[in-house]
Amino acid sequence: MSHVEEHLQSLGYTLPEAPAAAGNYLPYRISSNQLFLSGVLAMKHGRISPTGKVGGPLSVEDGQEAARTCALNALANIKAALGSLDRVSQFIMVNGYVNGVDGFARSPQVINGASDFLVEVFGDVGKHARAAVTVAGLPGDSAVELQIVVEFV
Amino acid sequence: MSHVEEHLQSLGYTLPEAPAAAGNYLPYRISSNQLFLSGVLAMKHGRISPTGKVGGPLSVEDGQEAARTCALNALANIKAALGSLDRVSQFIMVNGYVNGVDGFARSPQVINGASDFLVEVFGDVGKHARAAVTVAGLPGDSAVELQIVVEFV
Amino acid sequence: MSHVEEHLQSLGYTLPEAPAAAGNYLPYRISSNQLFLSGVLAMKHGRISPTGKVGGPLSVEDGQEAARTCALNALANIKAALGSLDRVSQFIMVNGYVNGVDGFARSPQVINGASDFLVEVFGDVGKHARAAVTVAGLPGDSAVELQIVVEFV
Repeated sequence: MSHVEEHLQSLGYTLPEAPAAAGNYLPYRISSNQLFLSGVLAMKHGRISPTGKVGGPLSVEDGQEAARTCALNALANIKAALGSLDRVSQFIMVNGYVNGVDGFARSPQVINGASDFLVEVFGDVGKHARAAVTVAGLPGDSAVELQIVVEFV
Repeated sequence: MSHVEEHLQSLGYTLPEAPAAAGNYLPYRISSNQLFLSGVLAMKHGRISPTGKVGGPLSVEDGQEAARTCALNALANIKAALGSLDRVSQFIMVNGYVNGVDGFARSPQVINGASDFLVEVFGDVGKHARAAVTVAGLPGDSAVELQIVVEFV
Repeated sequence: MSHVEEHLQSLGYTLPEAPAAAGNYLPYRISSNQLFLSGVLAMKHGRISPTGKVGGPLSVEDGQEAARTCALNALANIKAALGSLDRVSQFIMVNGYVNGVDGFARSPQVINGASDFLVEVFGDVGKHARAAVTVAGLPGDSAVELQIVVEFV
């Protein structure tokens, strides 16, 4: 098991199965030393959870938990792509989409659930540039979707 | 005519004119061997069609047709950028924005209209990483917008 | 002072302080010769202004002004990353997110506020590929958010 994956387990997390694509596309593409991941949802045990709108039925804390779940699914895709999480040299960019009520302005607080997790697991390697926006809807009504680009060796 | 373009025609499609930029920007930029395309709309014969909200006035099938139209416009831009569609070595990333009603959760089904088309035309080269989200509005009220990055030789 | 920065001042603009990240992330990441900037908001003197919805309380002109303010903040981050604005060889991609009312279709006109500014300051180097969409909400209720990738030497 890789060093990063051991650390992940010591923090109490287990890598899920890499999520299946929800359409005729790939979970990732590699160009040069950059790995482009497809959008990942808040998938738990094969079901999206939580679903619904942050700032309405869901709290910011619910959204943070969803963002962390998305990030964990992204790690499963990274492992599937690279064989080991240890090959990540840096997280380049995280685009965080929050399924929020109209006018929801706290997308950064929600996406911090993913950002804090990535830094907890990867240290400096996990730090990333980021954009967080609130959108009108997400696939399967997922509370959060993340789109991530990483650099690897 | 390129191999891919011949195949496109055999499938019954004709490349449109490359769409004009809707502002002070370029239809694409090239960095290293990556081609970054500007967002493309559901433009047909110089008009955006269909316009409006998917999941409301427009059905998922209308949205799929719009997504395919966007993809066809993207191909026109790729040809303008590279001279030939045959130079595409892989589609890296497709960002699909659906102009949907609030809470619309079927963006993947809509964007499949573009993904299926790209794979039909390019085969394995057309497979791509992808993120699909529902947004509150799109330029000219286009039903769909696609933003695509390809790698070329 | 760099050539570009002198030109910026001759146009009447002053580089603000590089904005602080609104969460556990970095203002930028560098991969190869590409600089990926985090989303920038319409930050003026440490406050987001204007806030609110374009196409509702805010006019398209208000949105254009917000987009220009975002771009100015992006330049502050580019200078912090590269030491000098003169190192930018091209703007590759600008993603413009407009905090608009549901169905707002004039995102290109709003984001032109940023595009025109970048071309005014950088000339051909400032031209870029672009996508403009209307979203349901933005961090701190900023009227506009920009996410930019540049190539540098």
